[in-house]
Amino acid sequence: MRLSNLNMGKTIGVLGGGQLGKMLFEAGSPTNTSYVFLETNYECPASLVCKNQVIGSLQNEIKIKELGSLSDVVTYEIEHVNVEALLALEQSGTPVIPKPSVLTIIQDKGLQKEYYANNGVATLDFALATIENLADKVAAWPQDNFVLKHRKGGYDGKGVQLLTKEKFAALLAAKDESLKSKYGYVIEKLANNATEISVIVAVAQDKSTSTYPPCEMVFDPRSNLMDYLIAPSSLSEETNAACESIALQAVKGFDSPGLFAVELFVEANGGVYVNEIAPRPHNSGHHTIESSFTSQYEQLNRILLGQPLGSTALVKPAATCNIVGPQDVNGAYQLANLDQVLAIEGVYIHMYGKTTTSPDRKLGHFTVLANTRAEVVSKMEKVKALLNIV
Amino acid sequence: MRLSNLNMGKTIGVLGGGQLGKMLFEAGSPTNTSYVFLETNYECPASLVCKNQVIGSLQNEIKIKELGSLSDVVTYEIEHVNVEALLALEQSGTPVIPKPSVLTIIQDKGLQKEYYANNGVATLDFALATIENLADKVAAWPQDNFVLKHRKGGYDGKGVQLLTKEKFAALLAAKDESLKSKYGYVIEKLANNATEISVIVAVAQDKSTSTYPPCEMVFDPRSNLMDYLIAPSSLSEETNAACESIALQAVKGFDSPGLFAVELFVEANGGVYVNEIAPRPHNSGHHTIESSFTSQYEQLNRILLGQPLGSTALVKPAATCNIVGPQDVNGAYQLANLDQVLAIEGVYIHMYGKTTTSPDRKLGHFTVLANTRAEVVSKMEKVKALLNIV
Repeated sequence: MRLSNLNMGKTIGVLGGGQLGKMLFEAGSPTNTSYVFLETNYECPASLVCKNQVIGSLQNEIKIKELGSLSDVVTYEIEHVNVEALLALEQSGTPVIPKPSVLTIIQDKGLQKEYYANNGVATLDFALATIENLADKVAAWPQDNFVLKHRKGGYDGKGVQLLTKEKFAALLAAKDESLKSKYGYVIEKLANNATEISVIVAVAQDKSTSTYPPCEMVFDPRSNLMDYLIAPSSLSEETNAACESIALQAVKGFDSPGLFAVELFVEANGGVYVNEIAPRPHNSGHHTIESSFTSQYEQLNRILLGQPLGSTALVKPAATCNIVGPQDVNGAYQLANLDQVLAIEGVYIHMYGKTTTSPDRKLGHFTVLANTRAEVVSKMEKVKALLNIV
Repeated sequence: MRLSNLNMGKTIGVLGGGQLGKMLFEAGSPTNTSYVFLETNYECPASLVCKNQVIGSLQNEIKIKELGSLSDVVTYEIEHVNVEALLALEQSGTPVIPKPSVLTIIQDKGLQKEYYANNGVATLDFALATIENLADKVAAWPQDNFVLKHRKGGYDGKGVQLLTKEKFAALLAAKDESLKSKYGYVIEKLANNATEISVIVAVAQDKSTSTYPPCEMVFDPRSNLMDYLIAPSSLSEETNAACESIALQAVKGFDSPGLFAVELFVEANGGVYVNEIAPRPHNSGHHTIESSFTSQYEQLNRILLGQPLGSTALVKPAATCNIVGPQDVNGAYQLANLDQVLAIEGVYIHMYGKTTTSPDRKLGHFTVLANTRAEVVSKMEKVKALLNIV
C-alpha cells in the first residue's frame, strides 16, 4: 500500500498490467494513488512502476476475487477478461468501472452491433451469422464486398477481413483457418471512403460527461495497426460536433461510469457511424498525456475515485505514432537516431518496457506537439523517419 | 534493475530520496530509466515509485560508495551530503553530476560569495566573519541593517536573519542560539526593494547550455518559505534577458554539467545580483512539469544520460504554490475542498507522500496553468483559498 494523504487515497485494482496500466499509474503518481495489478507475467509493463501485483490469469475467478479484496474499486485495461467473475465481484459489493455488463456487450461484436441498433446509434449495416449459415448469409448480402468479423476473440485487426464474395468462396473451399470462429460472425458493410475518428468519452460516477476533441486515425494498410493519430481532426466544426454527440449517445445505453474510446467512420457525404467502442484508455488518447489539460489516464483515475471530470481541452495540436517492431528485426533492439529525435522541441517518447521486438509488436509510442496541425504532421513525419528500431 | 530498451538505459544513482527524487523518477518513467536512491528512511517520497534503494545516511562514505557501484552516473537532490565521499567516487571513475567541486562551493555560503566575486558575477556586497570577529565586522558594516547568514547548515530560511545593528547587539548580549555557527558567517547587504527571480540553467555533458524563462518568486514573510512563483515574470524583456545572461555567467565557473537554479535579486533600478545557486531541481521549476516542453526533471535526466537538452520554452503561463502545513494542524491531515479544486481547468496537485503534517512542513505543491499571467494569478489565488490542509 502506498502512502497517501488525500481523501482520494483509495486503492485501484486493475485487470491487466500492460502499458495502459503503467500509464494509469504514472498519471496517479503525483498524488500517490495506490494500485494493485492482476497480471500473468510478473515482469509486465506496470511492474516497472508498481510491485503491488496479484499474479494470475485474467480469466481466473479466484485471482479476480483476490484482486477485489485488495481494492476499493476495480477496472480493466483490456477487454479479454472473465466477465462472470467481475459480475460476481460487483454483486459482492466491490464497484467495477466500467460495469461488467458493458464488457458483456463489448466482448461480442454481434451483441455490440445489436446494442447500437437497439439504442438508435448509427452504425454500418450488418448481419449476424453462425458457422452453419455463414455461406447463405454471405450469398444474401446485398453488396459484393463486405467486412467479415469474428464475434469474439479478435483484436488489433486480427479476426477481421475485408472480402469479396469471390474471395470468400475461395477461403470457404480451402477451409481456411481465418474462417474458423466458434462464436459466429458479423458481416458488415464497408465504410465508403471514410475518415476514421475516435472520440474519448468520460462518464463520471455522478453521471456528468465530457468528450475529448475528435482525433483522426490513420492506419497502416499492411499491418492494420494504427499508424498515427492527430488532433484536432481535419473535419469541419459541425462534423466534429456531430462525432462528439454520436459518441456520447453511443455510451449512454451502458448506463455506466467509465472512460470509453468510441471509434467512428465519417463518410465524405457527412454520414457518421459508430464502428466500435473500447471501454478503457486507448491508443487514440495517448497524446492527451502531453497535449491536454487532463490526460485520458488522469481522467480515468478521477472517474474511479469519484472525483469531478477534468478539462478535456487541447492545449496544443498533437500527433501520436506507435513504435512498432519492423519486419526484419527480432529479439533485442535499440532506437536509432535517438539524440537527433530528442533535440526536436515537443517530442515525447514512451516505451513499454518490452525487452524484445518481433514484427508488428507494439513497443511504445511517441507524441509530437506543435502550434498548428500542419506543423504537427511535418514534425511527426520527420520523427517517424528518424526513430527506427534496430 | 528496471527493464530498459533504449540506449538511454543507464542506472542513475541519486543521493536523497525526497520529493525531487520522486519527480525525477516520474520524468524518467515513460522511457523506463533506472534509478537507485540513497536515503536514510526506507519510506521516503521516492520509495513511492522506486524500491531500488540503498538505506543509509547521505554522510556515510561506505553507503555512497555502494550507491556508486550500482550506478552509471550519480547525482544528488539535496546539498547536505558528504562531498569528500563524492570526490572519491569521482576519482574512482564514476561520473558525479554536477561535479562534487560545485558542492564544495555551494555548501559554504562564504565560498559561494567569493566564487561570485572571483568570477565577475554581480552579487550583493558582503563580508565574511568568524565567531571571534563577528562583532567587529558588524560594527564596521557601512549600513545599519544587513542580512546575517551562517556559512553552513542553513536551509529554507533557517540560519538566515535580517538584522539591524541594534537587534544584533541584543542577540549578542543574550548569547542567542541563532548566532551560533561553527563555520562562520556572511554579512550581506540588503537587496533594495528587489524582485526575486529564479533562472534554471541546464548544462549538458557536451557543454551546451539552455535557460528556462525567468520566474518570479513571492515569499511568505512569516515563514520565509516560498509562497508562490510565477512564469513568465513581470519584468521587461530586457531585464529577463539580463537575468538569463547573468545566470549563465554564474554557473560558467563551475565548469560542470548539471541543472542549476540561480536565484537573483532584481532591483527597481535595474541592478541584477545573484543571491544563491542550488545545483539541483528546485521549487522554482516545479511548474515546468506541466507548463514547459521539457520539465526541469526531464532536463536533468537528459543531462545525466548524456542526451541533448530539450526545449525550455513555456507552453502556458503558470504559477506554483507550496502546500504547507498550517500552524494549527499536527499529525494526519486531508486536503479540504479537493473536488472544487479539481473541477477547475489546469490545476495539478503533487503530494510528497508525507503521512503527517506539522507547522510549515512542505507537504506538496500545486501548479495552475492559464492563458495569461493575470489569469494565472487569479486562478492561483482561488485555488490557494480553497486548498486547505485540515
